[in-house]
Amino acid sequence: MNYTAELIAVGTEILLGNIANTDAQDLSQTLSALGIDVYHHTVVGDNPQRLREALTIARDRADIIITTGGLGPTYDDMTKQTVAETFGRKLVYHPEQAERIEAMFRGRRHGMKMTENNLLQAWLPEGCTVFENSCGTAPGCGFAEKGVHVLMLPGPPRECRAMIRTGVVPYLSGLTGAGIFSRTLYIIGMGESAVEYALHDLMLEMTNPTLAPYAKEGYCLLRLTAKAPSREVADAMMAPALARIYDILGDVIYGEDTGEIEFALVPMLREKGITAATAESCTGGLVAKMLTDVPGSSAVLRGGFVTYTDEAKQSLLGISGELLAEKGAVCREVALAMAENAAARLGADLGIGTTGVAGPDSDERGNPVGLVYIGLYYRGQTWCRELHMHADRERVRLMTALTALDMARRAVLALPIRE
Amino acid sequence: MNYTAELIAVGTEILLGNIANTDAQDLSQTLSALGIDVYHHTVVGDNPQRLREALTIARDRADIIITTGGLGPTYDDMTKQTVAETFGRKLVYHPEQAERIEAMFRGRRHGMKMTENNLLQAWLPEGCTVFENSCGTAPGCGFAEKGVHVLMLPGPPRECRAMIRTGVVPYLSGLTGAGIFSRTLYIIGMGESAVEYALHDLMLEMTNPTLAPYAKEGYCLLRLTAKAPSREVADAMMAPALARIYDILGDVIYGEDTGEIEFALVPMLREKGITAATAESCTGGLVAKMLTDVPGSSAVLRGGFVTYTDEAKQSLLGISGELLAEKGAVCREVALAMAENAAARLGADLGIGTTGVAGPDSDERGNPVGLVYIGLYYRGQTWCRELHMHADRERVRLMTALTALDMARRAVLALPIRE
Repeated sequence: MNYTAELIAVGTEILLGNIANTDAQDLSQTLSALGIDVYHHTVVGDNPQRLREALTIARDRADIIITTGGLGPTYDDMTKQTVAETFGRKLVYHPEQAERIEAMFRGRRHGMKMTENNLLQAWLPEGCTVFENSCGTAPGCGFAEKGVHVLMLPGPPRECRAMIRTGVVPYLSGLTGAGIFSRTLYIIGMGESAVEYALHDLMLEMTNPTLAPYAKEGYCLLRLTAKAPSREVADAMMAPALARIYDILGDVIYGEDTGEIEFALVPMLREKGITAATAESCTGGLVAKMLTDVPGSSAVLRGGFVTYTDEAKQSLLGISGELLAEKGAVCREVALAMAENAAARLGADLGIGTTGVAGPDSDERGNPVGLVYIGLYYRGQTWCRELHMHADRERVRLMTALTALDMARRAVLALPIRE
Repeated sequence: MNYTAELIAVGTEILLGNIANTDAQDLSQTLSALGIDVYHHTVVGDNPQRLREALTIARDRADIIITTGGLGPTYDDMTKQTVAETFGRKLVYHPEQAERIEAMFRGRRHGMKMTENNLLQAWLPEGCTVFENSCGTAPGCGFAEKGVHVLMLPGPPRECRAMIRTGVVPYLSGLTGAGIFSRTLYIIGMGESAVEYALHDLMLEMTNPTLAPYAKEGYCLLRLTAKAPSREVADAMMAPALARIYDILGDVIYGEDTGEIEFALVPMLREKGITAATAESCTGGLVAKMLTDVPGSSAVLRGGFVTYTDEAKQSLLGISGELLAEKGAVCREVALAMAENAAARLGADLGIGTTGVAGPDSDERGNPVGLVYIGLYYRGQTWCRELHMHADRERVRLMTALTALDMARRAVLALPIRE
């Protein structure tokens, strides 16, 4: 059977534009991977009548209704009552949930007191499957009534996301008779449309596993999802497709299930005992910030310099005043000297130097916004990339940092580096 | 008359979870400021039948329907045709739009060719108000049919956002008979709920202008919105409320219409001729990155050090090895020395030093995650704040950086600094 789903978010804060409906995005990705078609997202405010109407409409057009939000302890949280009424289910007291909620409050340090209202969260539809909330007080639940499955999840994105994994996926896998298992490939140096183009034929012929690209800012990812009874079976099903993807895309794939490139690079450097240093002009600390976003980066990053001015480039990094006077700060020679000198001064194996025009205005020498040089030093060798970007300040800086980290990855893996 | 609105997004990419429906957020903020109640958001895929159904439902419950998406040149973009059919309007050819589209393609550098399909975008409902698209090819439009106003906007967020300002606000202001004018106050060092509590009575008694707080990560903002015939009248209406808000909240307000704190701090430092230097351990470059997010920061930031290791703290900043051996890197003395020495080495007026445990694990001395010291030096004076945060690595780092920048603001303005 092919299931269709409708997502109903309950929350006046979404209708006021205070927040975007990211729960719907998280759920949609999961449902799509499970092979469940989502035909509608609906958002209503904290208003029982409009929620009742939305539920009534959804009941006639979807097999699965998933609500998010309105499970809190205050008077305007009315999702459970309204769902229970609309579907003719009684709410019953779940003492084990009440205990869990009380225990959570006892464990809190900041002295937030539990009120009687919090225990309202322990009332759930009779005979439902309870979804435990690992990050908050409100439990979620799922039940079926006249062939329609109704799942209720808390609204805060962190709680919702955790419960999708621990509650929704097992519940829906039970319906569809298969678990879903996915692997995500991370790609840098090739845009989403080029990836899609390169894999077009493969994507068309695949049904299980499926393959879907997602564009991120400066990189993209490719999610391979198999429906299978177990992880082992899924892995076996995915293996041939994985091999073909690696064949087609090659070394622009920097990791599986890794996250941003720094989360692939830092552990790799750490494992190989490679230390790093940064010297940043146009990125102004962003490269160091990204490296230190990764836990354990203290074993890798020996230190960094932010040399936003010519004086700092001279005093902190020993860049020659003549060079700066002759060629200016935005040139190949300065980028290379920054990378080399940062590594030398900190005794690091690898040095990254960035210099360029982030904007909004071109520099006093007339270099245009988006012109950037990235210098890389690695154990005696150097490389320099010249970038020309048509982008705003934020994107110029991000693309520079991402490209620098990818150059470091390629140097360490002895892959060719475009110059 | 009180108008109600429904937003209908058309796009399979939203139902697949590839993107969140941020257009709805942007529109909701604008409509809320205009005093128009948004009761529903709906999302359907690129499917004429389901869009027709959604339009039919919306027509019976809203005075204003705003669609986003489905105005592109490909066969699956069918918003205009479906809206025109549902509301009984003919689509007519707008030659001036065709010319604009052709001109856009002629002006493009990257050699994208215009296809005949692109000219489909020049067909719009008869008698509509055309909304020019300043960032893309698809024009938007608005018309009224049997008392319901229908507005169609392109889906790409950048195009949609620009058209909200240039097309939607004028169109809807024409209906509601008033423009909207708002001022946003930025607040740091006081949480959203405390702000809401402090302003509760004031918010209750206000109707025009209205006052709404929005929580951000580490700071919050307060939007004052007046409906008025002109900016001058609006400003006069907002003045008494502004005065009362400043009275109640005082110096936690760091700016009006400024954005993040660095966008208030850097221009202030620049104007006063104050230079700055950073020395970062736990924030690993984040403070420098935030300062250099601001255009023109090169006149302010003399430079920065990322000293993630004890060795770097000694070699780059001259922190005493005995101090590090005795007290460890996470202590008041090291934070202060980092701030002072960074300023001294770079000849800056102001120095910021951060040291702490960002996590995920406590340090080798058993200091817990979230313990942070921030040292500040400003023209001969020093301060140190000790923070204890229960938060993850990312938030510990962000809160540290924000607090450091706020301490710098307070020092320069001679406001008291909590230690």
